[in-house]
Amino acid sequence: MKDKKALYAVILAGGVGSRFWPLSRQMAPKQFLKVISDESLIQRTISRIKKLIPVKRILIVTNVNYIHEIKRQLSNFKIPDKNIILEPEAKNTAPAVALVARNLFLQDPASLMVVLPADHLIFNDKLFINAIVKAKNLAENGYLVTLGVIPKKAMTGYGYIKTARKIDHGINGYLVEKFIEKPSQDKISKFIKRKNYFWNSGIFIWKTSIILEEIKKYLPQLYKRINLISPNKNFEAIWKKIAPISIDYGILERSRKVAMIPAKFDWSDIGSWQSLKDILKKERAGKIIKADSLDIDSKNILVWSKDRFIATMGLKDVIIVDTPDALLVCRDDYSEKVRKIVEFLKNKKREEHIFHKTVSRPWGSYTVLETGSGFKIKLVEIEPKKRLSLQLHHRRAEHWVVVEGRAKVTYKKKTKYIDSNQSIYIPADMPHRLENPLKNKPLKIVEVQTGNYLEEDDIIRLQDDYKRIKVD
Amino acid sequence: MKDKKALYAVILAGGVGSRFWPLSRQMAPKQFLKVISDESLIQRTISRIKKLIPVKRILIVTNVNYIHEIKRQLSNFKIPDKNIILEPEAKNTAPAVALVARNLFLQDPASLMVVLPADHLIFNDKLFINAIVKAKNLAENGYLVTLGVIPKKAMTGYGYIKTARKIDHGINGYLVEKFIEKPSQDKISKFIKRKNYFWNSGIFIWKTSIILEEIKKYLPQLYKRINLISPNKNFEAIWKKIAPISIDYGILERSRKVAMIPAKFDWSDIGSWQSLKDILKKERAGKIIKADSLDIDSKNILVWSKDRFIATMGLKDVIIVDTPDALLVCRDDYSEKVRKIVEFLKNKKREEHIFHKTVSRPWGSYTVLETGSGFKIKLVEIEPKKRLSLQLHHRRAEHWVVVEGRAKVTYKKKTKYIDSNQSIYIPADMPHRLENPLKNKPLKIVEVQTGNYLEEDDIIRLQDDYKRIKVD
Repeated sequence: MKDKKALYAVILAGGVGSRFWPLSRQMAPKQFLKVISDESLIQRTISRIKKLIPVKRILIVTNVNYIHEIKRQLSNFKIPDKNIILEPEAKNTAPAVALVARNLFLQDPASLMVVLPADHLIFNDKLFINAIVKAKNLAENGYLVTLGVIPKKAMTGYGYIKTARKIDHGINGYLVEKFIEKPSQDKISKFIKRKNYFWNSGIFIWKTSIILEEIKKYLPQLYKRINLISPNKNFEAIWKKIAPISIDYGILERSRKVAMIPAKFDWSDIGSWQSLKDILKKERAGKIIKADSLDIDSKNILVWSKDRFIATMGLKDVIIVDTPDALLVCRDDYSEKVRKIVEFLKNKKREEHIFHKTVSRPWGSYTVLETGSGFKIKLVEIEPKKRLSLQLHHRRAEHWVVVEGRAKVTYKKKTKYIDSNQSIYIPADMPHRLENPLKNKPLKIVEVQTGNYLEEDDIIRLQDDYKRIKVD
Repeated sequence: MKDKKALYAVILAGGVGSRFWPLSRQMAPKQFLKVISDESLIQRTISRIKKLIPVKRILIVTNVNYIHEIKRQLSNFKIPDKNIILEPEAKNTAPAVALVARNLFLQDPASLMVVLPADHLIFNDKLFINAIVKAKNLAENGYLVTLGVIPKKAMTGYGYIKTARKIDHGINGYLVEKFIEKPSQDKISKFIKRKNYFWNSGIFIWKTSIILEEIKKYLPQLYKRINLISPNKNFEAIWKKIAPISIDYGILERSRKVAMIPAKFDWSDIGSWQSLKDILKKERAGKIIKADSLDIDSKNILVWSKDRFIATMGLKDVIIVDTPDALLVCRDDYSEKVRKIVEFLKNKKREEHIFHKTVSRPWGSYTVLETGSGFKIKLVEIEPKKRLSLQLHHRRAEHWVVVEGRAKVTYKKKTKYIDSNQSIYIPADMPHRLENPLKNKPLKIVEVQTGNYLEEDDIIRLQDDYKRIKVD
């Protein structure tokens, strides 16, 4: 940490993104989805900022539940493990920013931070970097700087910034008069005719010391609690007491140090299927087809599926998102209401908003192919060199048939290798462990469970690489 | 066959019903679907007519491909096997009627026939029986009698009948002036204001001898070919040469003996999803929901699924039909165009129009749960007391895990019983046979196939209860 005035990226990646249901789930939120390219949104965000900031200064704040997925998605970037900061529970953005700012201040008091949402879309990387560099210069003068995107059209659902006078620092920066959170359609129509209204991009640049001062001033309870946290110690109990609040509402709407740099890049918070639809490339008649499908005479539709054949006819302004266990069909202007569906599922104690049918695990994934009376069939995929916990089940036996790769099975205190086209039977109460011993090839097994109780909680873990107690 | 002037039911059940895709498939046509109740359409048709005609006089004409499904669906009715007449290929209705009429005439020259489509909906059984009885009386006087349904609204897609003068037999019957096949909306609006236009129900009653005379007169080629067929002998070669033609077009539109009985029952040919929608009971806002689903603010929608959770929002006049491998979403007025989708699939040599994901077999069914590189996972269900062929595969091995019931496995020339939670390995080239030895319980096994070629045609059959050569 030798660079004076070094700039750190702080990527906020703790969101649950229920607005992209059924593609997003609680355990597969928007930032981890590949909605626009082969890179997920968080991967795109890192790829973009690392053109300016070395990976050792890229910090990620996320929910503890996402640790394995984050590591999987970050593996190619070589971001140090210690740069991943885990929130024990989601508390909105102000506590996350405060936590990182405080840790960073202890290590590097002269540092600056650029706070970036993990799940937004930005298209012109050069314009983006230019804006950050300008904002950094302004931030060095003690401002809390936001990037204000020049509005391209009258978008509802966004936050707007009204600027005041220009700042005299040889930079094209403005003082901020006020933030307007999701204004009405009428107001927006007026805003975009003027030159002093911008979209709030949620990208902020400031000196670590200044944001801490402002937190102390405007959110003193949060400041106090954050200071109780000892680096490298468990802070679950302290975190629990912290009140959730956004950095926008908690600090930016109150502080007198807020400035804005106008930014020209194409930007979207893709807060709904409709806003994604606005951005994706259209075929003839405004159609976006990301599926094996046939359409007859539809206009302006989005069809999204990986699994099945979809035929559409005569539709207009409709969004269809198909996943193995849940399907969404809605008119465009209802896509903001997807949260209501997620709430419904939550209230009914269902799982279609929590997991996908293929459930991600630290060691790989599993898919329940079929459930019947007294049996369950799973396809289990174990990544190279990974292994499940040493475990036993009281109430079920398991048949494993290896269909791809090679399995190393610990069983009856012995170790056995099982190749493709071989099988093994694990009776109830028998400690066992499944491992992929190969370096470059996934292991796939079909697991047939039989017994009178086949839930995930019938796992007694004797040892686990991932320090898990309850869930496999 | 002692009854003089005995009435026989001839149920036409050879249709492919592509208009109900994706619920209907070539191998699961409309007549076999349970669209309105726990009985399939053909089961409803039989239940209805057997109030008037004993099962020994109920004949079914169907395609040879449907023999196993017909037997499965007819098992509770105790219709003799010999009453099922198999067409080697579909030739439309006139050849089917001619074939049955000729066979029937040889057995019972004084007989009458009531010809019934297997896949229409009729709601009031009493009115239906009354109409048949009246029609029979008229038919005994030498008429070809059709039932004309009193039109309830201006339906396109139906055939219409225009009646001429009343017939003097003390019966409310009319001579038919002409048939109008699918008239325009304009014409229909005029028709339904008058009293002499009716829907052509496709239900016909006539003396066997009279229809044969008329076939001889108007379709002499067909008559000649039908007479070449020897009862109980293979007639594939003769059948191949027969030209397809409908009984309506071939006979009824030409014969001078055609009469009509007005019928008051509620009737629909349910020729499309839209027409089914017209008939099914609506919830609030005209919604028909046959699925695990949540709707917000939609109007007049049909949602049909057995598998997954479906969320709909803000839709109007939309039909959604979801199956495990194909999904249809269309506006109501496009539902007549479903054939186009089926044609597309046919042209692309796909299978989503032929089979369902769960494929019906004479011994039960199988579902492909997953296919990967070098493996295929199936759930196989064998009905009580049924067995697969004695077979071997050159290019694949099979692991079977019994998950329900008991399997009798013939293997290495020995017989072995395998119970739930046990498994067996069948290497390539090993003759084997799988059987459900139990009387009342299905057998379910998970079959994991491994090998470099996993298609259905790698089956060498050594013996088969169902006389099949190619497909398992």
